[in-house]
Amino acid sequence: MFRKITNADQAKDFFLKAIRPIEGTELINIENCDGRIVAEDIYSQVDVPHYRRAAMDGFAVRAADTMGANSSSPVLLRSDKDNEKGMCTRVHTGSLVPDWADAVIMIEDTVVHGETVEVFTQVHPFKNVGETGEDIRKGELIIQKGHVIRPCDVAVLASVRIDKINVIRKPVVAIIPTGEEVVPRGGRYPEAGEVYETNGLMTFLYVKKWGAVPHLLDIVTDDPEKIKEAIQRVTGADMIIISGGTSVGKRDHVPAVVESLGTLLVHGVGISPGKPTALGLVNLKPVVCMPGYPVAGMVALYYFARPAVRKLAHIPDEPDRAVRAVLSEKIPGRIGYKTFARVKLETGAGVNTRHISKAVPLATSGAGILSSVSKADGFVIIPENVEGISKGEEVEVVLIE
Amino acid sequence: MFRKITNADQAKDFFLKAIRPIEGTELINIENCDGRIVAEDIYSQVDVPHYRRAAMDGFAVRAADTMGANSSSPVLLRSDKDNEKGMCTRVHTGSLVPDWADAVIMIEDTVVHGETVEVFTQVHPFKNVGETGEDIRKGELIIQKGHVIRPCDVAVLASVRIDKINVIRKPVVAIIPTGEEVVPRGGRYPEAGEVYETNGLMTFLYVKKWGAVPHLLDIVTDDPEKIKEAIQRVTGADMIIISGGTSVGKRDHVPAVVESLGTLLVHGVGISPGKPTALGLVNLKPVVCMPGYPVAGMVALYYFARPAVRKLAHIPDEPDRAVRAVLSEKIPGRIGYKTFARVKLETGAGVNTRHISKAVPLATSGAGILSSVSKADGFVIIPENVEGISKGEEVEVVLIE
Repeated sequence: MFRKITNADQAKDFFLKAIRPIEGTELINIENCDGRIVAEDIYSQVDVPHYRRAAMDGFAVRAADTMGANSSSPVLLRSDKDNEKGMCTRVHTGSLVPDWADAVIMIEDTVVHGETVEVFTQVHPFKNVGETGEDIRKGELIIQKGHVIRPCDVAVLASVRIDKINVIRKPVVAIIPTGEEVVPRGGRYPEAGEVYETNGLMTFLYVKKWGAVPHLLDIVTDDPEKIKEAIQRVTGADMIIISGGTSVGKRDHVPAVVESLGTLLVHGVGISPGKPTALGLVNLKPVVCMPGYPVAGMVALYYFARPAVRKLAHIPDEPDRAVRAVLSEKIPGRIGYKTFARVKLETGAGVNTRHISKAVPLATSGAGILSSVSKADGFVIIPENVEGISKGEEVEVVLIE
Repeated sequence: MFRKITNADQAKDFFLKAIRPIEGTELINIENCDGRIVAEDIYSQVDVPHYRRAAMDGFAVRAADTMGANSSSPVLLRSDKDNEKGMCTRVHTGSLVPDWADAVIMIEDTVVHGETVEVFTQVHPFKNVGETGEDIRKGELIIQKGHVIRPCDVAVLASVRIDKINVIRKPVVAIIPTGEEVVPRGGRYPEAGEVYETNGLMTFLYVKKWGAVPHLLDIVTDDPEKIKEAIQRVTGADMIIISGGTSVGKRDHVPAVVESLGTLLVHGVGISPGKPTALGLVNLKPVVCMPGYPVAGMVALYYFARPAVRKLAHIPDEPDRAVRAVLSEKIPGRIGYKTFARVKLETGAGVNTRHISKAVPLATSGAGILSSVSKADGFVIIPENVEGISKGEEVEVVLIE
């Protein structure tokens, strides 16, 4: 069988250490950069605000003119656009404050009689005035290299008059489905002993979701030469994912082919399902060989392909989307394996919709039980040294995205 | 000032209750349905597997022929494709199991000598055979109405030969930026007293991210008639978001216009920043009036527009992406207001990258402090009845997406 089963964390660590983030960048419009990774520090070319700005609705004044004003003895100012002593000018929030003024009196602290303004409070210089560059100064670092752009960042970029930014290009991932029993969708129906190609399609969509550009290639039969040719034909990809043919049976040639073309880092991993996963490098490009069984393949994708794509793409770590729940039934672990148990979440009656209450284990027998995938909301991950988790225990459910 | 400040939760609850999820659906290819909402229950049209499937590499046998076999006294079978007693047939995982066979012996339990197979263990009927429909039965419900499609669901759909599904169409959201000081990007630079339009752009990208189709309309000046016309010109949208002109100043006409055209549900909300937010209905369509100050506008978007879009789109509740962190400085709350304090996350030296350790509050003075947005990783939300959170306390940081 497998020469050696590598511990899951060690396998992942070993694999990720062998991956170098990609280097190319591209200049794109800020309208299109949500979710992209900034390739270089971005500095503001302008002051924000770029003029002295009124922070309130009211009157721009010389602060000195308001000295002594209070609710029982107002100071009278003349409303005008002039800049003589004793003058004031109506401003709105965001308006330009004239050069001669040094403060803004709030409208609520005044009473207007034609051109005369009664001022009922005194103000200090700079009160309610946003100085030029107060928020962002010209030349200031506004977004750091490596930041993941969000819509609110786009607003900041637009405000400082930046139209395009350099981002890391998306890594390209070639996906090669294998198996003589696998037939392409869209043609004839699979006969007895055949199945439609679906792992490649699933991988395509996950890779896209994770921030890379997937290329789904033609199905290759279980022939070492054909598999070799298919891998060698891949050019321009930053990573390769091969589905199927990863176990130790007569028709499982993928790990040996990867070894012949480059380095086989790991074959046989302590994840369940997903044991037949192999990891390697061909032309220094990472290669994930995922088992053909749908659920095992999916676990391998999640556990190895996802962090690999993210590392290639410079995407920083982020927490998984997870919820706490109480197990409705015992789930068995498997000593030496990190077990991914599929669970369905059920929210109890009367429970707040944000508090998901119950995790119901789904049939876990067989890595091929396809129906358990679409029924599962998430995984409970059972560590290698745990025999199982009892009914009633509180667990973390990592949501399947 | 504001006639009444409505409690944040009450305002949201009141607003969401007034929103009816949209009704239209569209038929799309499964390749394009990741993230979409299933509009009707989906049943399988086929059995999975659609034939009796070998679950292991080995030999298909009649179980009865293996009776009594064990490691010291094997049973001898003839390897052939025939169906006589004493015969067996080589199968691979996933192969068709012949009609006459009722079990599969694992290859590891056999030794092959030419056409003779030594069988070292006895098997029971059905052992290692996946019966037709064992996983999914023809006619079985596979995906429920309202489910959010994930790549793994697409694989399930493909497996049962479904090419297209009915999903809820995406709601259309019209976005109207207002303000006489606001100038469109792409033309001349803003003069003193002017700013680029950026709230509409930010809203456009958030609305898209949240699963709707945004339409960003032209900027409208602070004139009630012009605002009215702009709202009336909107046809075909399921929701309207208006930016700016929501406060109680001389140039704030938006809430009154909404009231004149439909219903103003709320004006003045207990969120900080974001107090001038108004919520209403025009032609039974929800209208969010977000403050023009960038941070206040963003909080209003998050707190009101996001759940409104999700309700329109039939997207189920899901937990926010959040992390636990320890506050590096005290942050003040505001009694009566739900306060959204912007924080930056810092991971301490030597701390696991998954454990984000420190939440550093950013300048919270002023709803217009744009720079605090791009520097913030998330919000700490301080409840209405809390005066502030002390330095060193552990808090939940809701990540800004």
